[in-house]
This record gives sequence, structure tokens and C-alpha cells, in this order.
Amino acid sequence: MLPRLTLRRLLEGHHVSCRALGVRLLGSHHNHQREWSGQQQQTRHKQQVLATLAGVGAGIALWMKYNHQTAAAKLETADETQKYGVYQNGLPEYTLEDVSKHATIKDRVWVSFGSGVYDITDFIAKHPGGDKILLGAGGSVEPFWALYAVHKNPHVLDLFEQYRIGNLAAQDVGESVKNMDDPYANEPRRHITLKPSSKQPFNAEPPLSLLVDNLITPNELFYVRNHLPVPDIDASTYELELFDEESQKEKTLTLKDIKKYPKQTITATVMCAGNRRSEMIKVKPVKGLSWGQAAVGNATWSGARLCDVLKDMGIEDGKTSAVHVQFEGLDTDPTSMPYGGSIPIEKALDPHGDVILAYEMNGEPIPRDHGYPVRVIVPGVVGARNVKWLGRIIVSKDESNAHWQQNDYKGFAPNVDWDTVDFKKSPAIQELPVISAICEPLEGETVKVKNGKIKIRGYAWSGGGRKIVRVDVSSDEGKNWQAADALESDKARHPRAWGWTIWTAEVPVPKGKSKVQLCVKAVDSQYNTQPENFENIWNLRGVLSNAYHRVNINLAK
Amino acid sequence: MLPRLTLRRLLEGHHVSCRALGVRLLGSHHNHQREWSGQQQQTRHKQQVLATLAGVGAGIALWMKYNHQTAAAKLETADETQKYGVYQNGLPEYTLEDVSKHATIKDRVWVSFGSGVYDITDFIAKHPGGDKILLGAGGSVEPFWALYAVHKNPHVLDLFEQYRIGNLAAQDVGESVKNMDDPYANEPRRHITLKPSSKQPFNAEPPLSLLVDNLITPNELFYVRNHLPVPDIDASTYELELFDEESQKEKTLTLKDIKKYPKQTITATVMCAGNRRSEMIKVKPVKGLSWGQAAVGNATWSGARLCDVLKDMGIEDGKTSAVHVQFEGLDTDPTSMPYGGSIPIEKALDPHGDVILAYEMNGEPIPRDHGYPVRVIVPGVVGARNVKWLGRIIVSKDESNAHWQQNDYKGFAPNVDWDTVDFKKSPAIQELPVISAICEPLEGETVKVKNGKIKIRGYAWSGGGRKIVRVDVSSDEGKNWQAADALESDKARHPRAWGWTIWTAEVPVPKGKSKVQLCVKAVDSQYNTQPENFENIWNLRGVLSNAYHRVNINLAK
Repeated sequence: MLPRLTLRRLLEGHHVSCRALGVRLLGSHHNHQREWSGQQQQTRHKQQVLATLAGVGAGIALWMKYNHQTAAAKLETADETQKYGVYQNGLPEYTLEDVSKHATIKDRVWVSFGSGVYDITDFIAKHPGGDKILLGAGGSVEPFWALYAVHKNPHVLDLFEQYRIGNLAAQDVGESVKNMDDPYANEPRRHITLKPSSKQPFNAEPPLSLLVDNLITPNELFYVRNHLPVPDIDASTYELELFDEESQKEKTLTLKDIKKYPKQTITATVMCAGNRRSEMIKVKPVKGLSWGQAAVGNATWSGARLCDVLKDMGIEDGKTSAVHVQFEGLDTDPTSMPYGGSIPIEKALDPHGDVILAYEMNGEPIPRDHGYPVRVIVPGVVGARNVKWLGRIIVSKDESNAHWQQNDYKGFAPNVDWDTVDFKKSPAIQELPVISAICEPLEGETVKVKNGKIKIRGYAWSGGGRKIVRVDVSSDEGKNWQAADALESDKARHPRAWGWTIWTAEVPVPKGKSKVQLCVKAVDSQYNTQPENFENIWNLRGVLSNAYHRVNINLAK
Repeated sequence: MLPRLTLRRLLEGHHVSCRALGVRLLGSHHNHQREWSGQQQQTRHKQQVLATLAGVGAGIALWMKYNHQTAAAKLETADETQKYGVYQNGLPEYTLEDVSKHATIKDRVWVSFGSGVYDITDFIAKHPGGDKILLGAGGSVEPFWALYAVHKNPHVLDLFEQYRIGNLAAQDVGESVKNMDDPYANEPRRHITLKPSSKQPFNAEPPLSLLVDNLITPNELFYVRNHLPVPDIDASTYELELFDEESQKEKTLTLKDIKKYPKQTITATVMCAGNRRSEMIKVKPVKGLSWGQAAVGNATWSGARLCDVLKDMGIEDGKTSAVHVQFEGLDTDPTSMPYGGSIPIEKALDPHGDVILAYEMNGEPIPRDHGYPVRVIVPGVVGARNVKWLGRIIVSKDESNAHWQQNDYKGFAPNVDWDTVDFKKSPAIQELPVISAICEPLEGETVKVKNGKIKIRGYAWSGGGRKIVRVDVSSDEGKNWQAADALESDKARHPRAWGWTIWTAEVPVPKGKSKVQLCVKAVDSQYNTQPENFENIWNLRGVLSNAYHRVNINLAK
């Protein structure tokens, strides 16, 4: 175990120097090890050691598996995208070696795509994914775009072509993705009703009409939010690493070890920070997956309490100077950087915080899409910190420096745009604010009126263990409100009410109207309620999209 | 100690039977003991025993101190109120004994006031103070109105006169308040800048312009919210009673005993549930004191942790079946019912909940108006549960059955009015939602524009230990927003950030305009934010008044 931890720290040290020097060294990422899933868990150590020790620019080859599929061939809309990155007469020609000399802002940042060479220096600051774009500096973007299929659409590619400066030498075209495994070749099967907002990585939500049929969301219908390909982990060889920066203690737990701790079962709602983003988008575009109202689900989770596991390492409330607990997933990007996030130490060590290393979801082993074999459940906290395929826990003075903690999943004032945003100025989202949605009827549906009333239902939830105490509904655009008739939730009390509430209401509809707008807003046990409109909470990432949910329907007599 | 506790339980048993039988028995409150402050602490036990054992209807005389002042003489606006309760020709005459036969709904509820007799049966359900009105059933309302001066205004008295049915026999007029002490004769002196929203009981807030001059509010400027006259307690004989219903354990602590526990100091904001009510009132009238934006203050509080004190009684997390911790004040009404409230056991036993039995406010003994000698500070929770002049703590399966816990301080949907309200349907307010206010400039002020900008400042706070992470300000009625430039708060972290944040901002003002509307909204560490307008959060008690604060100002060049 030690070699991996030591190596990781070594790499992190390197990464820190990169940050300290600004972007100057980031172009040297080729010196990092590369690896990919499949036999990932088994081969990771060797690859990391090899890659780091070798230190050659062609490290990327380490995660190619002599397969004839190429990432370029994975373009989701091949017909539309084939016109990009093609040879253009009259432009100068460069080799991959020429491109590799432009890996820093000082030298200008060049990348290749297909037969094209691009100088993206002036685009870096505008990249929605932040400085992750520098991982491809001085090389081909294709291995990265194989992971982040969002790039492969005409809108992005049109923008990209504006930075075209040359053609790639014929012998180098396709070289960087030759024999590369399809990172998505080994994804799990998904339920047919899940509607993807992105296929690679896979992100999907269930139909809204099915969402609140049960207080507990069936595993198959639970929304999926993956940032990277799903790792394929053998539970029998699975290991969770723990590291306490203060004491320098290390520990490794197998799944069996984790199961030896008292089994704690909680009901907790997990929600994506971007749930309901598609509504905020209507005010003004934002960057992010266009989620509907179903990027949320409620399940029972069983596992070991994190506070028990940390106590065994001597880490207890009042006995540590640590401020954060970092989590790393076993899902990694082409540079072997894992998905990561962190939570405040207060939440991790609070026995009533109910943070668990979960190995069961609704009484079954956690499905692959949801973190098999172990996922951390941080109830009441945004999905992004509920790290799946949990590989490593670091108890630290610092927050995770992962992209998703530092430069994503944060809220900003409505006037902040991609030109002015400073991600350092805003705290990482942890607990989510109160939210609700109408799941029945659906937008545009025609609804039968009975005795002057219609029936509506939906969900409401608040982060931080706050319980829903009231749900107000309106059938006249919010002019008049009444409390929903029934609220269904599990019995947990504030401040440990981690699960959502399903509500139903019978609301009178204005006479003589054929169209009405329904609205809902929830009130939690802190008596917080939702903002009315998206205008005043708009933010460039489209997160925290919790304004009143409004549904326009037709009435039938 | 035992006699008092035993007696209290006896009385509570009686009170429960009253509730169980509806209002039928409530008219028999005259059998309860009566007492008043001053020598209250010293004489309370004897009085209670006497009053209960004697069981005579004239118990009210027990808190009369042979003083020639009468409550009736205390009418705040004597000129206006003298025309009420006067003899009216043509109405039948009743004696106090006649009136006393109408003390239940079944018998119709009669009361007297001055020379008037009233049948208030049909008003009971509409009484803003809930069933407290029944305390006066079958007798004179004057002893009660001496306490609750809110009744003594023409609006209330006009309403009251609608229920007039007769005249009181001449020999009985003034009888019920004859020789009665002025319960407000011994109030503390207050700072001249405190603006009262009610003088008896005393309720006042400081000028908004002074409120945020300091992160810590000086004691003299701290808003005062009293429900009853201020008791005058001798710290040397002060005793705090504790009772655990489960184990039946009793305990008494002197101030010295309390000071033996480790001294915990926290910075916590205390706010009235009705802060900013005067803004909500503009939408539609509500019942309650018309507070501005300054019914809030931030102080350091020092005392013993409640969890330490309870631990000494064997009451610990996981070792008790209790669900609530009730608090009783030493401030009592004419029936000797103390002010009371309760908090959930989770908050009381959480060492990070920071509930303290405070004996110091900003480093000084707690001033009389704020609970001398001991007040419970429940940080992050509405002022109403921060019970002052703490006399008794009861660890129980039940919430406090005090009026202020059961039939007051709760939120409701906007369509709920005094005809339809069912207080059982809503949870007692505990943690308060996120709020903010502009303290400078003030409404209607003329402000100098410098370089196209003006300077504004104010406070922001959220209950539940949530820290303020951003304050958004607008100078164009909320069309455009920007984050405030500076936030000042103490260093406490979520979820123990009990203190408020003072913010300052420089905002550009639209060119060529002479009048603008400023708005503010805060965002807390759960990323909850405030509702936009009062229309959608209006509630009949005017509590939780946390919509955007809007201030209209004039611009000077």
C-alpha cells in the first residue's frame, strides 16, 4: 500500500508545484502516469510507478490497450462532426513534436484534433471546465474528448475551429488515439426509462411521472451522475486507503474490513447540484448538463459510519487539527487524476452527521453506476461530495484540490459571468437548500377537473437534515397558496431528516379557465423557503436551481 | 424543593385535565394560585401552596399588594380609552357573582371591564392570544390588561364593545383591580434610544442607523422583547430547578453552582420571530408588535453548557427517551403561569449545539431586561426559546405546553387566517431562516453619489449555525445584483456560526435617476436565500418576515 500512497503524494507535490508556478508547468502533464479502468485496480500501482519513473512524453500510451477502436470514432453525431479537424489547404503543417513545444501559456498553448492544429491560448480563460483544458496542452485533445463527449457537438467544434492555425503532419494524424481503448466499452447496462442528458460520461434521470411513485426510489430508476467512465471493480480485491495528514498514519481496509464495523442504515436523498438546471437556462444560458426535475432520488444506504472508521485511526472530535476530509474515487481521467471532493471535518466526525461508507443501496450491493462496491454517503450534502467507487480518504487541513471542489459546484451572484468569475471567492457547495417539484401533472398535460379541483403531487427536500414541514401549492401562478394535504416521509427528525418528502394536494382551479399555471414551494424545519424566480438566483453554472417549480397545464371538464 | 415541583406537577395535571375537557374547566382558573414579582422568588412556594389548598375563587387577590394604583388607571392613552367600559343606560345590570357563573363556553363566557359586562363567547376563536383569553373568563379582564397593554387601544376596545351585554353592579366596579400593584412599577431603566413598539410589557428596538456600528451589539442597544413584567431577582437567593420526567430526578442549582461548570463563551445573534414584521404588514394586516429591522442583536454570552448540566443528571445522548427540553421563566402572568418554551432534545444534548445557561452578556452580568441572573441561550434558534430569568428546566417527552410554544410563534401558508388557523398543524419555530437588512442608508434618506456609486451596509444572519457566505445587493429594485464587497463576522464555522455578519457594499446607481430602490438578499452556507416578496410568505402572525429588504432613497450629486 505504501508505495501507492507515497507515489500519490509525490504526484500531488508535483501538482502543487504546477499550481504554484501558474500554468507554466502544467503542460508537462505528459510526465504523469496514465492508466485506465478494466484491470485498473490491479495494474494501477505498476503503471503509476512505470509512468512516473519513465517520465516520457508519450506516457499517454500507458492507458491505450492495443484496441483498434479510436476515440475519434466515438463522436456521437459522426455525420455532423466529420467536417471538423479536416485538412485545410493553405495552412502551415506541424508535427506532433512541433505541437508539444507549445504546452505553456508563455510558449502559447497548441493542441491537435484530427488533422487540425489549434492555438487555444486565448480560449483558456473561457473554458467551462476551467484549467483542466491545460491537461491536453502540447498534444491531442482526442483522448480527453473521448471522455468528455460534451465537446463533440457542432457548437463546441465551431468555436474550436476559430482557433485553427495549421494542419497536423499526415504521419501523426490519429497517432495519439491509435490503439486506444474505448474508455466507455465497459459501462453497466441501464434501465431503458433513464433519459440521458449525456451518454459519455453517462448522466441520466428517470421520467418525472415515475419519480414519486415510491418514497424509496428503486435502484434502477435512480438518476445517474457520472463524471468519468464507470470503473469495473472486483469487490474481492477492493481496497480503501485512508491517510491522516496530521499523524501521517495510513491504513487500508478491504470490503470485509468495512463490513466488520457496526452497520448503519439511513434513508437519504441524493441530489445533483444541477437538478432543475433546464429551468434556469430559460433565463439565460448556463454551462452544465440540462437536467430536468429528476436528478434526485431517495434510497436507504447501509454501511460503516465514517466517524467509527476514523476513530480507529485516532481521529476524533477535539483530537484533530484537520479541517476537511477528502474523498477520491477510483474513476480517473486520462492523466490518472481521480474524481474527488471533500467535506468539512465537523460533518465527518459528528456521530449524528451519519456519513457512511455505504456498500448497500436499498438492501442490495450498490449498483456499479452508483459506486460499487463502496460509496461515501454524506446525507444532506450535494451529490458531488457523495463520492462513488471510493478509493481513498485523506484527513487534511485542506479542502480537496479536485476540479469539482475548487472550480465547479459553487454558487455566484447573478452578475458573475465566465469573464469575471473567481472560483476562489465562493465556498464549495455542501448542504443543499430547500427545493421542491411538481411531478404530476406534467408540463403541457391536460388534466381532468373534479368538483372544481385537480390533484397534484411531487417531492420536496432540504439539505442539512432539515425536514420538510409544509409544501405550498398554487393553481393561479402564485397569487393564492394553500398547504398540500399530505406529506409522506420517513420518521427521521430534524436535524437528521436526510430523506425527501412526497406530497399530494387537491387544489381548486379558477372557474372558466382552460389553462392554468401550477406552482409549488416548500418550507423546511428551519422555515427556509424557496426563491420565487430564477432571475435573482441565476448563476453561470446553473446550480442551486431551486426557484418555485411552475407547470403549465390544460384543464378538461 | 420537592414541594414546589410536586405542586407544579399537580397544577400541570389540573391544567391537562382542563385541556382534555376542552374549555369547560378553564374558567376555574381562580382556583390557581396568584402571585407577583418583587418578592416573587421568596414567597412563591407559600403562595402556591396556600392558593391551591385554599382553592377560593378570589385567588387573584394574592397578587394584589394593597396599592392604590389600579390597572385601569394605567391605560396608555387615557383620554381615548375613558369612553370604553362606561355605564350604558338601558342595559341589564349584573354583579361579579353573576359574571362568575359564565366561565365556560357551555355557560357562555362573560367578562367585565370597567362598568361593562361582555359575552365574548363568539370572540374566543378569533382572539390573537389564543385560549389565554379564557384565563379571564367569569371575571374582570382588567388584571390581564394591566399586563398586556396592547388591549388598551381604541381598535381593540371598539371591537370589545361589540360584545357588550350589560352593566356591572356599581359596588363591584373596580373591585377586581382595587389595591392591585402596578406590575410594571419595578421595570429596569432603559437606554433612551430604544424605540418601544410596546411599553407594557416593554418591547423596543434600537435605531437602525446604530445597529451595525459594531459587530457586537452593546447591551444598552440590544432589542428588548418582554412578554410580561421584568421579575426582580436576587442573584444570591436565585435557584434554578431541574426535573427529568423519565427518571423523576430533581435538582436545584444556585448561581454559584452554575458557575462551577466550565465557562463556555459563544457569540450568538438573538432575533425575534417578528423582526421586520412592519414590512409584512404592508401586504395585509397581521397580529403582533410592529417591529422594524432592529429586533435583533449580536452578543457574546458566557455560561454553563446545558449538556454538561444535564449529563450530571444522567441525561445524555442515547441514554434518554426524552424528546424535548422545556424552559420556564420566572416572569409569570396573573395566574402564575410562567413564560415558557421548549427545544428539541437533539439541540440540547449536542455538545456542538452550544446551548448555555448564560450569566454574562458581553462580559457583564446579564442585564435585567435580558434575563438576569440566568438566561438560556439557544444559539441559531428564535429568541422566544432563549428563555430569560430561567427558573426551571424540564426534560420531557413533550413540548412545552406554554402558549408561546403551542399557539404562537409558528408559520402558516398565506391563505390561513384567524378563522381557519389550527395551531396544531404547524411546528413551533426553532431555527430561523436566512435574513438580511439594509441599515444605511435609511428609507427616504438622501444620499450623496460618489463616482457613480453609493455606499450601503447592513446585517445578514441565518439560524441553525449557518454562516453567511454572500450578500447580494441591487440598486435597481432587484433587476441587477452584485455581491457585497466585505463581510465581517466572527470566525465560527458552519454549523456553529451563531453570530451575524455585517456587510458593506459600494453599488453603482443608474445614471440620471433621483430616486432608486435598494434591495438586499443574503445567502447562507446551506446556500439558502431569501424569498423575494412578502406576498408569498405572508402569515397571520407576521413572523419569519425575511423577504428582500427594500429601501427607497433619493440621490444627491
